[in-house]
Amino acid sequence: MDITGHQLIAGTAHPGPGTPIDAIDPASGEPLAPAFPGASLEQLELACQYAAAAFDSYRETSLETRAAFLERIASEIEALGDELIVRAMRETGLPRARLSGERARTCGQLRLFARVVRDGEWLDVRLDRAQPERQPLPKLDHRLRKIGLGPVAVFGASNFPLAFSVAGGDTASALAAGCPVVVKAHGAHPGTSELVGRAIQRAVSATGLPAGVFALLHGSGREIGTALVADARIKAAGFTGSRSGGTALWRVAQGRAEPIPFYAEMSSVNPVFMLPAALEARDEELAQGFAASLTGSAGQLCTNPGLVIALAGPALERFKSAVALALAEMDASVMLSPGIHRAYVEGRDTLGRQHGVREVASSRVGSGPNRCQAGLFAVDAATFLASPALHEEVFGATSLVIECDDQAQMSQIAHALEGQLTATLILDDADLDAARELLPVLERKAGRILANGFPTGVEVCDAMVHGGPYPATSDSRTTSVGTLAIERFLRPVCYQNLPAALLPQALADGNPLGLVRLVDGKRESH
Amino acid sequence: MDITGHQLIAGTAHPGPGTPIDAIDPASGEPLAPAFPGASLEQLELACQYAAAAFDSYRETSLETRAAFLERIASEIEALGDELIVRAMRETGLPRARLSGERARTCGQLRLFARVVRDGEWLDVRLDRAQPERQPLPKLDHRLRKIGLGPVAVFGASNFPLAFSVAGGDTASALAAGCPVVVKAHGAHPGTSELVGRAIQRAVSATGLPAGVFALLHGSGREIGTALVADARIKAAGFTGSRSGGTALWRVAQGRAEPIPFYAEMSSVNPVFMLPAALEARDEELAQGFAASLTGSAGQLCTNPGLVIALAGPALERFKSAVALALAEMDASVMLSPGIHRAYVEGRDTLGRQHGVREVASSRVGSGPNRCQAGLFAVDAATFLASPALHEEVFGATSLVIECDDQAQMSQIAHALEGQLTATLILDDADLDAARELLPVLERKAGRILANGFPTGVEVCDAMVHGGPYPATSDSRTTSVGTLAIERFLRPVCYQNLPAALLPQALADGNPLGLVRLVDGKRESH
Repeated sequence: MDITGHQLIAGTAHPGPGTPIDAIDPASGEPLAPAFPGASLEQLELACQYAAAAFDSYRETSLETRAAFLERIASEIEALGDELIVRAMRETGLPRARLSGERARTCGQLRLFARVVRDGEWLDVRLDRAQPERQPLPKLDHRLRKIGLGPVAVFGASNFPLAFSVAGGDTASALAAGCPVVVKAHGAHPGTSELVGRAIQRAVSATGLPAGVFALLHGSGREIGTALVADARIKAAGFTGSRSGGTALWRVAQGRAEPIPFYAEMSSVNPVFMLPAALEARDEELAQGFAASLTGSAGQLCTNPGLVIALAGPALERFKSAVALALAEMDASVMLSPGIHRAYVEGRDTLGRQHGVREVASSRVGSGPNRCQAGLFAVDAATFLASPALHEEVFGATSLVIECDDQAQMSQIAHALEGQLTATLILDDADLDAARELLPVLERKAGRILANGFPTGVEVCDAMVHGGPYPATSDSRTTSVGTLAIERFLRPVCYQNLPAALLPQALADGNPLGLVRLVDGKRESH
Repeated sequence: MDITGHQLIAGTAHPGPGTPIDAIDPASGEPLAPAFPGASLEQLELACQYAAAAFDSYRETSLETRAAFLERIASEIEALGDELIVRAMRETGLPRARLSGERARTCGQLRLFARVVRDGEWLDVRLDRAQPERQPLPKLDHRLRKIGLGPVAVFGASNFPLAFSVAGGDTASALAAGCPVVVKAHGAHPGTSELVGRAIQRAVSATGLPAGVFALLHGSGREIGTALVADARIKAAGFTGSRSGGTALWRVAQGRAEPIPFYAEMSSVNPVFMLPAALEARDEELAQGFAASLTGSAGQLCTNPGLVIALAGPALERFKSAVALALAEMDASVMLSPGIHRAYVEGRDTLGRQHGVREVASSRVGSGPNRCQAGLFAVDAATFLASPALHEEVFGATSLVIECDDQAQMSQIAHALEGQLTATLILDDADLDAARELLPVLERKAGRILANGFPTGVEVCDAMVHGGPYPATSDSRTTSVGTLAIERFLRPVCYQNLPAALLPQALADGNPLGLVRLVDGKRESH
């Protein structure tokens, strides 16, 4: 299939007049054809106008139609075959196995949301029946369902060219909620974006939906992204990226005449607390697991373990030595883009130059452009507590070991942390009391707390939370992975005393859709 | 019981050093003893510090203890007896019947949240069990529950001195969610606030909870409110009041180092669409119902019908004449405070002076200070569409009739409206097609859509939505009335592979709390 470099709007392709983006093969530094000229503001207007026009019809599609649409997107992506994987490999430097797995996750998550849509629990249907005889005032009939917020802007993420991009989690959950989606493609994988975008366009057409349900725009710089979030027809947005980029767009969303929810996932150092008995017993095994988690995908995962907190002493020294040995045998992996590589080198160098920070280990330098040399650094707890700069994420395979004098200092570190996507406890039975002291602190800091594992690898399931207090995300009340994500794009509407002829089917007497409903305070099941 | 004018912090009373507030009897304009000197910033710090210290313990109280606490607050409020009603009457000018009803609603809503807490569905428990044999990667154990966001700031509202104030909906839902509450008392009913605050303090003590679970602060001007929202220990806030006040505090919440959810309910004109057949058949009856809804509580209800949209013609003329007759027989009611009365007079006068606006009717002038002279105005649809000033709320018993040429113009009005708490359809069978055209527009504009009634009177139930798109509220994803309100103060936390010894009881194997849980995608019931 030809990649044209065009915007995808309302079922057709539109050549853009803007500054062109070149996709770069980060392994070689060479540009890839074709160029992707950015969208004009008129094209952005058109995409938003079509999305707004499609909303009322799309949000009232039957649950079955909407579920089938999500499944059709998955099968259209699978039908792209190896072309998609090859293009994504060239644009991102990620290896085949990782991208094949990511495609499976992307399609799996579309199918999971199809199940969620069919299930209908997200409608949160509640009926309170009239009680005309109630004293002192009669009770009127009230019925509630949730509906989509409106057209949603989705920003493709650099580090998941499939699972957090054009047909990724934000798109899947917004479409599941009944919201048309306008995607701003990430400039680091525009060809991958177009292939997936065309797959969605085919699914829209095959399912007979209004063409405005989906659009894909390209744009260099921040103009198109900013204009998209500012457009009055857009009612929510999903973003995964840097703290500075997320914060800037979040401010645009809050500064509108009508502020809108802006779900930014931005920054997390994912602290790993290695408790004494576990570290003493398993230093070597932990070092292997840690080194693999640190360097997977060249460290370019939102849940990469960026901090290790442990007691200073022989066990920690053995752990650090074992990590150093493991890293020394590793080749440097290609990073996603020259920009991300530059930022990584600068972040790593800055960290190494901070007062009191010692370099512990490195992977090999690597040959060729844009290679990520993994790094492990160490600092004592008092210095960490006094240095806000050490709390910041270095995006890539770099981690910092915080050496504590005692358990109280480990607890102090936990209290001092900013919001996180994850927090990890490495523990044995003898560590349970220490873990019990840390747990309530970590619950207030992180969206996911894990034991005896490493935080990379995010399961797409009902119980997942990929979220957390600021700055991990802009909104800790939600998640961007897992079925709970659908709630980000919904709002409740109450219907009081509405004639049966006007009531949405989900709220009708007799429960024609067979939904789980809360009726007069009691669950009514299928 | 003596009203002392003190702040209530950590189970004790603290005289404030700040500028004193005098409660004013709006019926006479006379001040009421005692004075309420405002809190110092140190007292505010103390309240927030105690709230933060109480959070971990309070959020892990058993469901039964927390439910009993809410019920105890209700019975302590009832035990205040007539003293509470008399004080509230003097401070607000509201009549005894209204305040007795409001007390019943306040206590009923505390007891409703006790039911919600016991039920435990708000925990949203989800378990995805481990599948060690899964290919290509084993599935780990994941479990999710929701926990409280942290200490919550609640702003008392002027117009509901009980149901939206110290122990009102925001406090009840935040306490139900496991969040300590720091209330900023409204300056128009500080004595009522202290009486209710002391009732809550007694309930805290009787239930054996940490004293930091509740605090009450006074303060004139905006200093204390602003400092409260800015305090790093406060993790969410609830507000009901003016658009300017709500917007100012919302900006403080967004400008913090860690932005927080700020739930402001601000402004709504609550459009009533009177469709032709219904208006033709029932003009007289509609006029009676409308006049009662317009003038109840001197028009000082968030859901007061501020706009009537109908076709110009004889039926509308008959309706207006009947409203005029009804208003002419009504006495002007006392408004809540001199400040609200001043703003009402100015808002009403400004509306009357707008280009194209005609005065249709008024209630009597009334004798004594702070009386609300109800007003009905009319304007043609084209002028309304061209005049943004006519879309703004006049808080009090004033409404504007928009006279349309045809159905298309009624639809244009619907499209042009800002976000609303409510939208009303007055219809007969012959109006169904017109209603079907308006309904999807109104769903996008309002949190509650009602038929053949008037929007004042908000039922506290599972299916209620008292919310809506901006500027009706700052967050359309939620409601401030009804059981769904608990979700405003919760966030999800995922526990991955946690040893049984550390798992919260709600997530334990064997479901010891007997909760409704989602286990591997299926509902597991009690």
